[in-house]
Amino acid sequence: MTRFALTVEYDGRPFMGWQRQDHGPSVQQAIEEAIQGITAQEVRVHTAGRTDAGVHALAMRAHFDIETRLNAFRLMEGINAKLRPQPVAILACEEVGEEWHARFSCIGRRYVYKITNRRAPLALDIGKSWLIVRPLDVEAMHHAAQILVGQHDFTTFRSVHCQAKSPVKSIDQISVTRFGEEIEVEVAARSFLHHQVRSIVGCLGLVGEGKWSDKDLNDALEAKNREALGHNAPPDGLYFVEALYSASDTE
Amino acid sequence: MTRFALTVEYDGRPFMGWQRQDHGPSVQQAIEEAIQGITAQEVRVHTAGRTDAGVHALAMRAHFDIETRLNAFRLMEGINAKLRPQPVAILACEEVGEEWHARFSCIGRRYVYKITNRRAPLALDIGKSWLIVRPLDVEAMHHAAQILVGQHDFTTFRSVHCQAKSPVKSIDQISVTRFGEEIEVEVAARSFLHHQVRSIVGCLGLVGEGKWSDKDLNDALEAKNREALGHNAPPDGLYFVEALYSASDTE
Repeated sequence: MTRFALTVEYDGRPFMGWQRQDHGPSVQQAIEEAIQGITAQEVRVHTAGRTDAGVHALAMRAHFDIETRLNAFRLMEGINAKLRPQPVAILACEEVGEEWHARFSCIGRRYVYKITNRRAPLALDIGKSWLIVRPLDVEAMHHAAQILVGQHDFTTFRSVHCQAKSPVKSIDQISVTRFGEEIEVEVAARSFLHHQVRSIVGCLGLVGEGKWSDKDLNDALEAKNREALGHNAPPDGLYFVEALYSASDTE
Repeated sequence: MTRFALTVEYDGRPFMGWQRQDHGPSVQQAIEEAIQGITAQEVRVHTAGRTDAGVHALAMRAHFDIETRLNAFRLMEGINAKLRPQPVAILACEEVGEEWHARFSCIGRRYVYKITNRRAPLALDIGKSWLIVRPLDVEAMHHAAQILVGQHDFTTFRSVHCQAKSPVKSIDQISVTRFGEEIEVEVAARSFLHHQVRSIVGCLGLVGEGKWSDKDLNDALEAKNREALGHNAPPDGLYFVEALYSASDTE
């Protein structure tokens, strides 16, 4: 058996999310079926992040084990050919040791959340950004976001369906930056709770609109209660952008 | 009658192009029907650029005349509501004098053509960029492009269906810039021939791949013959980004 690591880009719109579902298409199923189409082997693909329905990835990491004489490049070409015309592309494929695990070896994850701040509806970015019509104070958003950096009980910012054992997570960095009418919220942590980034961005949107103060955000965090959440942002603007592994894992 | 000027963003994929067609949907028809839905008046919308099927716009300019008591803001909001869910958005609407004409008053037009230069298929940018797999030499493309700047007979770079009286056009600027795996070709001129930008970018792609030299591009230009064209780039990567008007026209 050989283990291969993948880097994957996908448009989340047509999928029920990363994870296989009985009731609709998933990114996992698309990739597993593409691999099976080449190798005729049952295969299970593991990922660094199980993104929700409608959430995108610029560079998701994943791995799987198969018996094959194909090298990593041929395998990548074959999977990409089988994936067509679905909006999933394998950007890179490499052979890794069996101790390398896309999920368990991952020591850092980074998401970007894209907001379009303008009056007009989205045309080119439908499903790929969150439209907020009221003018946003990006400096206030960035300032408030720093309250959430560090280790906290994120119960307020966690889906009721979250399966993590503990609600305590440590956020390494949050930055909010404006590029014209586009705003990007970048969030980095070792790992995240279910809906954590969308819950954070939803509340930062309230701060940006002037509806919430720093104190409101802090109170929501301190409440440790999902009922205290101001708003959960839609999946449209969320992109998984990077998974980090320690140098020894990739050697 | 009041004349209103529009700034329009659209995703060209579902449309046969800007101009009304008997055989399919057009951006012009979408906007005209939206205006008629509000004012119950027959209306004709004029544009700065009649883009082809699949070509996008970040900021197309257009105008129309109607009898209305609505101000420009209410009119814009109404048109945007009627346009939904089509991927066309009115970014700005303003009242202008009857001497202002979206097409005839326009003194400069700017397009950006987006190329993705990588091995993997497109996932997030399907229909919105031109995928070129072979590594492109962007400096060679930029250098060769300067041959086309200035006034020339662009017969080679013109669709056989082009209706312009003269093939002589003056290109003000072409720049080719790389941002990671994305390459942007920016082209500015007072006006363009049908397929001119796509024809230019198609040939610059050949230069970037090393298949054409500066001399080959110059020979194609000198040939003044459509048969000498190396390649016509697909519509996917083309965006109308700016129409310029003299200050006196907008005052």
